[in-house]
Amino acid sequence: MNTPKIKVGVLGATGAVGQRFVQMLQGHPWFEISALCASERSMGKRYADACNWNLRGDMPAHLRDVILEEAVPGMDVQIFFSALPSDAAREKEQELAAGGHIVCSNASAHRYDDDVPLLIPEVNPEHLGLIDIQQQRRGWSGFITTNPNCSTTHLVSALHPLHTAFGIRKLFVVTMQAVSGAGYPGVSSMDILDNIVPYIGKEEEKMEKREPQKLLGQFNGHSVEMADFVVSAHCNRVPVRNGHLEAVSVEFDRAPSLNEIREAWHSYKPLAQQLNLPSAPQPALIYREEQDRPQPRLDRLAGSVPGMTTVIGRLREDPLFHAKFLVLGHNTIRGAAGGSLLNAELLVARGYLGAEAAALVGAAQMA
Amino acid sequence: MNTPKIKVGVLGATGAVGQRFVQMLQGHPWFEISALCASERSMGKRYADACNWNLRGDMPAHLRDVILEEAVPGMDVQIFFSALPSDAAREKEQELAAGGHIVCSNASAHRYDDDVPLLIPEVNPEHLGLIDIQQQRRGWSGFITTNPNCSTTHLVSALHPLHTAFGIRKLFVVTMQAVSGAGYPGVSSMDILDNIVPYIGKEEEKMEKREPQKLLGQFNGHSVEMADFVVSAHCNRVPVRNGHLEAVSVEFDRAPSLNEIREAWHSYKPLAQQLNLPSAPQPALIYREEQDRPQPRLDRLAGSVPGMTTVIGRLREDPLFHAKFLVLGHNTIRGAAGGSLLNAELLVARGYLGAEAAALVGAAQMA
Amino acid sequence: MNTPKIKVGVLGATGAVGQRFVQMLQGHPWFEISALCASERSMGKRYADACNWNLRGDMPAHLRDVILEEAVPGMDVQIFFSALPSDAAREKEQELAAGGHIVCSNASAHRYDDDVPLLIPEVNPEHLGLIDIQQQRRGWSGFITTNPNCSTTHLVSALHPLHTAFGIRKLFVVTMQAVSGAGYPGVSSMDILDNIVPYIGKEEEKMEKREPQKLLGQFNGHSVEMADFVVSAHCNRVPVRNGHLEAVSVEFDRAPSLNEIREAWHSYKPLAQQLNLPSAPQPALIYREEQDRPQPRLDRLAGSVPGMTTVIGRLREDPLFHAKFLVLGHNTIRGAAGGSLLNAELLVARGYLGAEAAALVGAAQMA
Amino acid sequence: MNTPKIKVGVLGATGAVGQRFVQMLQGHPWFEISALCASERSMGKRYADACNWNLRGDMPAHLRDVILEEAVPGMDVQIFFSALPSDAAREKEQELAAGGHIVCSNASAHRYDDDVPLLIPEVNPEHLGLIDIQQQRRGWSGFITTNPNCSTTHLVSALHPLHTAFGIRKLFVVTMQAVSGAGYPGVSSMDILDNIVPYIGKEEEKMEKREPQKLLGQFNGHSVEMADFVVSAHCNRVPVRNGHLEAVSVEFDRAPSLNEIREAWHSYKPLAQQLNLPSAPQPALIYREEQDRPQPRLDRLAGSVPGMTTVIGRLREDPLFHAKFLVLGHNTIRGAAGGSLLNAELLVARGYLGAEAAALVGAAQMA
Repeated sequence: MNTPKIKVGVLGATGAVGQRFVQMLQGHPWFEISALCASERSMGKRYADACNWNLRGDMPAHLRDVILEEAVPGMDVQIFFSALPSDAAREKEQELAAGGHIVCSNASAHRYDDDVPLLIPEVNPEHLGLIDIQQQRRGWSGFITTNPNCSTTHLVSALHPLHTAFGIRKLFVVTMQAVSGAGYPGVSSMDILDNIVPYIGKEEEKMEKREPQKLLGQFNGHSVEMADFVVSAHCNRVPVRNGHLEAVSVEFDRAPSLNEIREAWHSYKPLAQQLNLPSAPQPALIYREEQDRPQPRLDRLAGSVPGMTTVIGRLREDPLFHAKFLVLGHNTIRGAAGGSLLNAELLVARGYLGAEAAALVGAAQMA
Repeated sequence: MNTPKIKVGVLGATGAVGQRFVQMLQGHPWFEISALCASERSMGKRYADACNWNLRGDMPAHLRDVILEEAVPGMDVQIFFSALPSDAAREKEQELAAGGHIVCSNASAHRYDDDVPLLIPEVNPEHLGLIDIQQQRRGWSGFITTNPNCSTTHLVSALHPLHTAFGIRKLFVVTMQAVSGAGYPGVSSMDILDNIVPYIGKEEEKMEKREPQKLLGQFNGHSVEMADFVVSAHCNRVPVRNGHLEAVSVEFDRAPSLNEIREAWHSYKPLAQQLNLPSAPQPALIYREEQDRPQPRLDRLAGSVPGMTTVIGRLREDPLFHAKFLVLGHNTIRGAAGGSLLNAELLVARGYLGAEAAALVGAAQMA
Repeated sequence: MNTPKIKVGVLGATGAVGQRFVQMLQGHPWFEISALCASERSMGKRYADACNWNLRGDMPAHLRDVILEEAVPGMDVQIFFSALPSDAAREKEQELAAGGHIVCSNASAHRYDDDVPLLIPEVNPEHLGLIDIQQQRRGWSGFITTNPNCSTTHLVSALHPLHTAFGIRKLFVVTMQAVSGAGYPGVSSMDILDNIVPYIGKEEEKMEKREPQKLLGQFNGHSVEMADFVVSAHCNRVPVRNGHLEAVSVEFDRAPSLNEIREAWHSYKPLAQQLNLPSAPQPALIYREEQDRPQPRLDRLAGSVPGMTTVIGRLREDPLFHAKFLVLGHNTIRGAAGGSLLNAELLVARGYLGAEAAALVGAAQMA
Repeated sequence: MNTPKIKVGVLGATGAVGQRFVQMLQGHPWFEISALCASERSMGKRYADACNWNLRGDMPAHLRDVILEEAVPGMDVQIFFSALPSDAAREKEQELAAGGHIVCSNASAHRYDDDVPLLIPEVNPEHLGLIDIQQQRRGWSGFITTNPNCSTTHLVSALHPLHTAFGIRKLFVVTMQAVSGAGYPGVSSMDILDNIVPYIGKEEEKMEKREPQKLLGQFNGHSVEMADFVVSAHCNRVPVRNGHLEAVSVEFDRAPSLNEIREAWHSYKPLAQQLNLPSAPQPALIYREEQDRPQPRLDRLAGSVPGMTTVIGRLREDPLFHAKFLVLGHNTIRGAAGGSLLNAELLVARGYLGAEAAALVGAAQMA
C-alpha cells in the first residue's frame, strides 16, 4: 500500500494508558506516531528516560530517543490520542480541537458534553453526527471524540444487541475491577493484597447515570436522546492485574428466552466488524459455554485482536429480572487506549480524515 | 466456677473447619474437647501427625497426642461439632443424634430438613422449637441443629433487623468470597492468582431459595413458614484468604429512609448478646461510616470476639430498589465453626443440656 | 514444504505440562499430534471432556474430539513427549523406548540414569552420544532423552557460557518459584496467598547434586564426567503464577571482570540458535540493563519464542564470590514442555529420525 | 502501680510506621502519648482527619481528636519515637536531642554515626555506652538511639547467639521482603501482583556493609569496633503483606554441629528477656521443626508479643558453608516501631530516664 500513514500524537505518553497507546500503535497499518507529548515535568526528556515502561516486552526501540514535547496546535499531527488525566484534558483537548486537530480522548473531561460523541464503534457509530454540531457550535476546525469508562465499555458492548432486540428497562451490575484501571502507581499494594476495596471514586455515578444511557441513546440529527433505563451499580477493586469482571442482571421491555439472548449475541456483527477495521476484533462478542467463565486471567486477551473483545458467560434465569450473566473485558486495552484507537479508525473509515485516508479501509477489507 | 465443663467432640477435626473448631474451643469457658474424630484414613493416628495445622499459632499442645477416633453413639460426648463434608455428614449425624447426642453441624446435609433448625442465635432462636418436633418425629433422644452457609450467615445477620422493621421484598446480592470457604486444599492457586472464578457450586441455589427464607421464616409451633421474599444471587471466588464481601440491594415492603435503616442496625441487640453468650460478639453488627469500608483484610476480625461480628458499610440510595450497602464477615469463624459453636452456647442457655449446664449462663452474665 | 510431518504423541496430555505440549505443538512446522495419551481414569474419553484446559486461549479445536488412549509400543507415533508423573514415567517410558519409540521426557524418572542424556540443546548437545550407549546397553530400538527440572534449566542456561569461559567453582542459588511449577491443582491457594512456602520437595537435592553437574559435564565417548563445582540451593515457592526467579552468586576458577561476564552472555550463540531450530529463541539469553530486572511478570515471555529465553540481570560484584546476578525463565515453557520439544527438534536436526526428517532443518534455515 | 507514666511523642505519626507506634503504645504500661507530630502538610489537623488508618482495628479512640503539632525542643515529652523519612529525620532528631529529649529513631539518618547506638536490646545492650560519648562530643543534653533496618534486625537476631558461640566468618543472605516494608503507599499493586521486584534501593548496602557488623561489633569504652565478617545480600520484594523471609548460609570460625547451633538458639535468653521488658517477647527466638516453616502468614505474629519474635527453621548442612537456615520476622513491628519501642524500654531499665522510671522495671519483673 502506498498511501502514506496518518500522523498521530499521544498526549500523556508516559502514563499507563499512554504506554498502551504507544504499544498498540506499533506497526499499526494506518497510523504512525509523530509526537509523544507529556506534562511539563517530563518535557524535553527522552521517552526512554521519562517513561517507566510497565508493559510486557520492551518500549518500541525507535521511540526511545524521541524527545517529549508540549502538545500545541499546529503540530504535524492529524489525530491526538489523549491519555491525559481529566483535569489536564479539559483545556488541552479543547485547544487542540480548536486548532484543527482531531482528538480521540480516553479522558472523561468531555464525555458528557452534549455535542461530543461518547463512542463505541460497534454500538453507536451514528453518534458521529454530533461532530458537525460540535464544530458549528464551537467554531472549531478540529473536534473531540471520547470513549467511555473501562467498566461501562464492556457492559454496554454486551448489552447493545440485547437493547436493540428487547429493550433494556432495568439493570443491576456489580463490578470487580482490576488494579490497572487506576493507572500507575494507582492502587497501593498495601490496600489490595489479600483484600477488596469496595469503592472507586465517581465510578458508580458514571455507570448509573451518565454513560450507558448516552451510549445507547438515539441521535436525532442534532442531539442524543438518552436511553431511559435505570441502572444500579456497585463498583469494587479486586487484586487482579487486568480485566474487569461484571455480574449483571437485566430486565427488558419484552421478555426474551435465554436462547433469544444467546442468539442475539451470536448473530451480532456490527459495522466496525463489517468494515474490518484493524483494531475491530472478530467477533465483537464471545459467549463462553462453560459454567465458570469468563475469568479475567483466561479471557481478558480473547479474540482476534487481544484485549478488544468482550467476553460473556453464565447466562441464566434471574429470579427478580429476566436474565443474569457475566461480562468481562480488558480494561486498559478496549476499556481505554484500544477504545480511542478504534474510534480513530472509524473516523478514518467514515471519511473524517479525507478521501485518501478513507481509501485505507477498502485496502484493509481486501487484505 | 465449679460446674464441670461440658464434654464435646469434633467431627472432621483435621480439616479446615475442624481446625477452627479446635482453635475456638481452646480455653472455652463451658466446653472441653473430649474426642477428636476423623475419617477412616486418619483414625488411630495422633492429631499432630494426621493434621496439617494451617491456622496462625500452633495446634493446642495438649491435643497433639490425642488419638483420632471414630465417632460412635455412646461416647462420653454431649455435643458433637460437625465439620464433616456433606456426604459423610448425612448418615453419621443421624446416627449420633439417634444415639442421644446433640449435633451442632456446619454441614449442609440436614439444613433443609423440615424439622431441623437452621439457626443463627441472633436471628431465629425461636426455631429451636423444631427440636421437639424432630425428636418426636424421628424417635431420637439427641438432635441436630445446623448453621447456614458462610455467605448466607452474614447476609441474613445484616438483614434481620431490617426484615423485622420494614419487611424484605426483593434482594440482589453479589458475593466476593474468600478461598478459605472452599476448605483445604480447596481452590488451586493456579485458578485464583490474578483471577476471579465466577462460579461456586450450589452456592447461588443456597442463597436464592433455601437459606434466607428459612432463617427469616416464622416458627408456628410445628414448622417454619418460609419468608416469601425473592433473592437473586451471583457468587464469585476472589483471591482473598478470609472474609466474604457482599454487595446488596434491597427492596422493602415499607420504604425506610437511610437513617431508619442505619438506626435499625445501631439499636440491634438480640438475645444472644443479651444473654452474653461467650462467643456472641458485642455488638452483633458494626456499621462503618467510611466511604470505602468494610474491607476483608481490615474488618474480618472486627468486634469483641474476632471473626464473629458482621460488618456493614456504604449504605446509600439504590436507583432500582430502596437501598444498597455492603456486608462483610469472616467465613470460617462466624460463617462456619463459630456459627455452630454459638448455636451450642444458645442450646446451653436454653436448657437443652439440663439445668446445671444452663447455670453456666448466669455465671457468664455476672462475670 | 512437501516433507510429511513427524507424528508425535503426548503422554499425560490432560495435565498442566501435557496441555503446554499440546499448545506448543499447535502449528508446529515439523511435528503433528497423532495420539493423546492419558491415565486409565481418562482413557476412552474425548480430550475436551477429560481435560480442564487451564491455559489462555482455547484448546485446539481439532483436538477436542480426539479420544484419549493408552500409549503402547507399536502405535503410529515416532516421538512421545512425556508429561507423566515420575512414578508412572519409569515403566511406561522404558516400555515405549524398548518398542522403538523416541521418548522426549520432562519426567525426572530417567534423568539421572548414566546412559540417558539430560539435555539442553544450547548447553550440551554432545551428550546425545549417550543414545548409542543406551541402545546398546539396553537392547532398545528406541531411546529416552530428558530435560532438566524447571529451576535447573534456566540456571544452567545462564551459567553455560560462564562455565565455558571461566570455570565455575562454587555456586549459591536461592529460587523464588512460581506455583505452576507444582502442576495442577498443585499448590493450594490457602498455602500461598499472602505467603511464601520455603520448601519444595526434592528440589534442592536436584539443584545441588544431580542436575547442574551432569548438564555441564563432559561426554567422553562412553559416559558423562560430572562437572565438579559445588552448589548450595535454597528453594522457595512464591505467589507468582509463572516464571522462576533465581538469585545467584558464583565463584569461578579464573576471576573474570563484570564486563567479561556480560560479554560472555552477549556473544553466546550456541548450536540450537545456529541451526535455527523452530523453538530455539533468538537470542538464547537476554541480559537486561535496568537495575530492577528481570521480573517474572515482565520478562517470563521475553524473546522470539515466548517463554523459551532465559533472562538475566543485575550483574554486580559479590563480596564473597566473584559475581552475583539474577536469572529468570518460564518454568512450564522452557522449564518443562518447551525443553522437551527443543530436545526433539535437536534430535531431528542431528539425524536421529532419519535423513528425510533432517532435511526439515535445512528448509528451516533457508526460511 | 502509682509511678506516673513517661510522656512520649511520635514523629511522623500519620505514616505506616507512625501508626504502628501509636498502635503499640496503646495501653503500654510505662509510656503514654502526649504528642503526635507530623509534617507541615498535616500540622493543625485532627489525627483522625490527617491519618488514613491502615491497620486492623480502629485508631485508638482517645487519639482521634488530638491535633497534630510540630515537634520542637521543650515540649512536654521525654522520649520521641521517630518514624520520619530519613531526609526529614537528620535535622529534626538532632534538634530534639540537642534540646534535651531522648530520640528513639527508626530512621536510617543517624544509624551509621560513630557515636549513635544502633541497637537491638537482645544483641548489643552494651552499645548504650555510646550515649555518653555522643552527649560529650556533641554537647547535647538529650541523645539519639536507633534500631536497624527491618531485614537486618531479624537476621542479626538469629545470628547473635551463633556469633557469640562460633564466630561468623561469611554470610550469604537472600531476602524476600513484604510490601509493608516500603511504607504507604509504597509499592504499587501494578508492580507486585503476580510478580517479584528483585531490587530494593540501598537495602543490600545496609545489609552487606553497614548494619550487621556494627550490631555485632564490640564496644571498647569509646567506640564500636566493627565485626569483621563478610556478607553477600540479594534483596527482593515479594507479594506478601507483612513478614520478611530470609534464606541464610553461614560459615563460622569454628565449625559447629547442627545440634550445637540448634542448642545455641534454644538456650538463648538475653538481657531484654531477663529484664522482662514489656515488649520483649518470650522467647526471643523460636525454632520450628517442620520442614516447611517459617512462613510469613503463619509465623509473623508468633511469640508472646505478636510480631516481636524472630522465627527460624530448616536448619541443615550447607554444601559450601557450614549451615543454612531460614529466618522470618515481622518487618513493621519488631523490624520498625517495635524495635524503637523496645530500645526505649531498655533505656528506662538502664536508668537513662532516672531512678524513678527505672523502678518501673522492678515492678514489671514482679508482675
